[in-house]
Amino acid sequence: MADPRFAEAAGPFTLGTLARAAAAELWPADTDPTRPIRDVASLDEAGADEIAFLDNRAYVDSFRTSRAGACIVRRAHIDDAPGGMVLLLTDQPYMAYAEVANLFYPDRPLEPGIAASAVVAADATVPATCRIEAGAVIESGVVLGARVHVGANAVISRNVAVGDDTVVGASATLSHCLVGQRCLIHPGARIGTRGFGFAMSPAGHRRIPQVGRVLVGNDVEIGANSCIDRGAGPDTVVGDGVMIDNQVQIGHNVRIGRGCVLVGQAGIAGSAKLEDFVVVAAQSGVAGHITIGKGAQIAAASGVMRDVPPGGRYMGNPAVPAKQFFRELVSLQKLARKGDA
Amino acid sequence: MADPRFAEAAGPFTLGTLARAAAAELWPADTDPTRPIRDVASLDEAGADEIAFLDNRAYVDSFRTSRAGACIVRRAHIDDAPGGMVLLLTDQPYMAYAEVANLFYPDRPLEPGIAASAVVAADATVPATCRIEAGAVIESGVVLGARVHVGANAVISRNVAVGDDTVVGASATLSHCLVGQRCLIHPGARIGTRGFGFAMSPAGHRRIPQVGRVLVGNDVEIGANSCIDRGAGPDTVVGDGVMIDNQVQIGHNVRIGRGCVLVGQAGIAGSAKLEDFVVVAAQSGVAGHITIGKGAQIAAASGVMRDVPPGGRYMGNPAVPAKQFFRELVSLQKLARKGDA
Amino acid sequence: MADPRFAEAAGPFTLGTLARAAAAELWPADTDPTRPIRDVASLDEAGADEIAFLDNRAYVDSFRTSRAGACIVRRAHIDDAPGGMVLLLTDQPYMAYAEVANLFYPDRPLEPGIAASAVVAADATVPATCRIEAGAVIESGVVLGARVHVGANAVISRNVAVGDDTVVGASATLSHCLVGQRCLIHPGARIGTRGFGFAMSPAGHRRIPQVGRVLVGNDVEIGANSCIDRGAGPDTVVGDGVMIDNQVQIGHNVRIGRGCVLVGQAGIAGSAKLEDFVVVAAQSGVAGHITIGKGAQIAAASGVMRDVPPGGRYMGNPAVPAKQFFRELVSLQKLARKGDA
Repeated sequence: MADPRFAEAAGPFTLGTLARAAAAELWPADTDPTRPIRDVASLDEAGADEIAFLDNRAYVDSFRTSRAGACIVRRAHIDDAPGGMVLLLTDQPYMAYAEVANLFYPDRPLEPGIAASAVVAADATVPATCRIEAGAVIESGVVLGARVHVGANAVISRNVAVGDDTVVGASATLSHCLVGQRCLIHPGARIGTRGFGFAMSPAGHRRIPQVGRVLVGNDVEIGANSCIDRGAGPDTVVGDGVMIDNQVQIGHNVRIGRGCVLVGQAGIAGSAKLEDFVVVAAQSGVAGHITIGKGAQIAAASGVMRDVPPGGRYMGNPAVPAKQFFRELVSLQKLARKGDA
Repeated sequence: MADPRFAEAAGPFTLGTLARAAAAELWPADTDPTRPIRDVASLDEAGADEIAFLDNRAYVDSFRTSRAGACIVRRAHIDDAPGGMVLLLTDQPYMAYAEVANLFYPDRPLEPGIAASAVVAADATVPATCRIEAGAVIESGVVLGARVHVGANAVISRNVAVGDDTVVGASATLSHCLVGQRCLIHPGARIGTRGFGFAMSPAGHRRIPQVGRVLVGNDVEIGANSCIDRGAGPDTVVGDGVMIDNQVQIGHNVRIGRGCVLVGQAGIAGSAKLEDFVVVAAQSGVAGHITIGKGAQIAAASGVMRDVPPGGRYMGNPAVPAKQFFRELVSLQKLARKGDA
Repeated sequence: MADPRFAEAAGPFTLGTLARAAAAELWPADTDPTRPIRDVASLDEAGADEIAFLDNRAYVDSFRTSRAGACIVRRAHIDDAPGGMVLLLTDQPYMAYAEVANLFYPDRPLEPGIAASAVVAADATVPATCRIEAGAVIESGVVLGARVHVGANAVISRNVAVGDDTVVGASATLSHCLVGQRCLIHPGARIGTRGFGFAMSPAGHRRIPQVGRVLVGNDVEIGANSCIDRGAGPDTVVGDGVMIDNQVQIGHNVRIGRGCVLVGQAGIAGSAKLEDFVVVAAQSGVAGHITIGKGAQIAAASGVMRDVPPGGRYMGNPAVPAKQFFRELVSLQKLARKGDA
């Protein structure tokens, strides 16, 4: 059960309502659809009036011994279910769980208002539906959409535009950027900072003006303390629905396609291009001026130095196709064992 | 000597006092224990009225030529000492130095008070012993313990609790968390941010509510710009005495045992478990849903993909036992040299 | 063309003026030097009244089809130029472009003033030429030089000194440091934070006072959310002209020589020394207590565990000379292919 200081469940909901939200089939077939469920919970912690889910096979043992009243699972796990547990059968347990969890914990409606200590420029556009927290700074020429929520001590610099329903976290700073609707920008994120552009010389490196912008699409999430530099001349572009975790670094002129996922501490060097639905796992790096093809996946802690074809599964440093990586790994292990003999 | 603008030494202290604090033996035996020492200093910079230490063998040459009046060392280094230097003999020079240095530079007592520009909610609990710096924001329902120090422009969000004597650095942001006593949270740290939880789909990734908390124990240090996401449902837990360096990323549901050390830019993915006294060196990553056994040590820049047994010494990417890593490294080097021949 | 909301070109300038700024030769020789050029632009986007540049050979195709009126290139590319394009010939196209771009986009003169919501201590030195943005905090004893620009919600702690013409970005925090002239400190940077110094013990790690400073030279750039810890006793030193990208971590006692370049997410562990003009590429790590010789270059995602000689080109993890790295890589690939046969 969530700590009511920080989150409050909206339930109870009946099993029938949950099954509909999850697009799942109740099992056994004679389950009473009016039975109330009070909350979501993990397999280990759920009780008789709570609903859990099983997606990662590593947790099958927890499923077998769970006391959850109901659980969202694949049909293949029916036989693993403990006696008396109601199942919500689906091919996509995690997505189904997402729907159910959003039912219990919907986004709260925003209470509009501007804190007395916020500093809002006279010529900034701040609709009455927005909420501006204490100490936030909204500079001249800024244009906020409806219901934008600006966190405490956040800074939105001159002429930045932010779309409807976007949330800007505490202490985040935005400059030189146009941000879409329904984005979630976490605390400490830096958007629109100066790109790392200079000509090197023993006589002193010479900075190059960075006159592009950052264009952030709709439904984008940008993690805590992540940074997105503005373009040098072209823009840095983040497509619709992109999910960016914490401490991710995105260089100038980078173009990130729709639905890409960048996991914690990943770094994308300047002028790289990620086509749609690319996944870059944690701590991986993508070199500058290369292209990662549509739907490619880069494993954690990899270093991508060259173009990756669409759909590629790459890993290692320098990154190679996953099959090649494992073949080389096994060869090396065999070699080392032989050396011992 | 420390720059008095930033730090002021509390001494002088006599050699006798220092030896007692260090639990060390004065050498030579006939050393005058009333001789005053004015400050700590490095081997290279220390003068006749200062005390240095030697722990890392790489600095033996600096020890041999040091002009320090006194030095904390292991007995094995007596013969390396320059003439006239007083030694404080101990088996644990670095710990002994810690005691001595804390004598010279104790934590300053906090001057209580709330800056005029701080924003403190009417229903927040802020004892009169606390110090709240300029521009800090303490939201509704926050509960601070005695002598909590909140830095300039820090943000403590709704209902967060912070224990006695904890320091929250400038521009740090805390939400959805309960923090223990005597913690040191550095500038720009992000605690309680939304976990990176969503179900992926070509139709648009679906966010999953993150309704857990971050529970931080006592005596925990959290470095500058480090991030600790709150749990998805279970809590993210950081045990007593954990030391976290700068720019460390800790995902949702992670459990970190007592006394663990996470060095700069390390990343711990969601739902991983670190048992007590694990060390994860700089820039290393730990994959999600795995367990690192008690006292295990992960070398720098390693990528841990599987469980590590208690006491394990692992390195490489993917990480393997250190012995195996070096065996494979040597095999590869031999092979490459052979190829040249 | 730059978005006028965020950047305004100062032109037009004649080809003759641009060639002089670039120290370049106009080609063909009979080019009209009075022809006006309105702006800089990328090869792909430039039109007839704009100037582009070609430095990276990967973009030769863009050069061949560019509609730019003028382009800064090496002499070797004359034959690749599309008909009618004016060339500015130089051996250093990127540096020449830097000069031209700075002509079009000079740093704006600072409008002095202190925002009403800024908090400036009565005994801080803030010349009338400075600009202090909203919510910034300037603590007691701080000394700012002429024309220092302090961003919104930035925090400059007690007794810090900042040189003439330095810019401190929004939400950056400075403590225990002396910063030179003409530095560019980006949003969220943390300078002078406590070093990660403690003696480990099962009974509880014991913190060691960090009584050194951070000394930052002139013309230094420090990227967004980067961290530089203060020294433990000695100072942490960053030399003149050093360029530090985003999310770089620099530990206590580190000494970085003149003109070094540290690319995004690099990490330099405590007490390491970088001699002048070292380049550490993205996501690389340098172990503590080692020395990287003058002019050495560390490739991206490398882990340097030992001293590197001056001029060395190192890569891999652990880092070795680049030639050795590639030899070992090729050997492993051959071995794996043999294994398949």
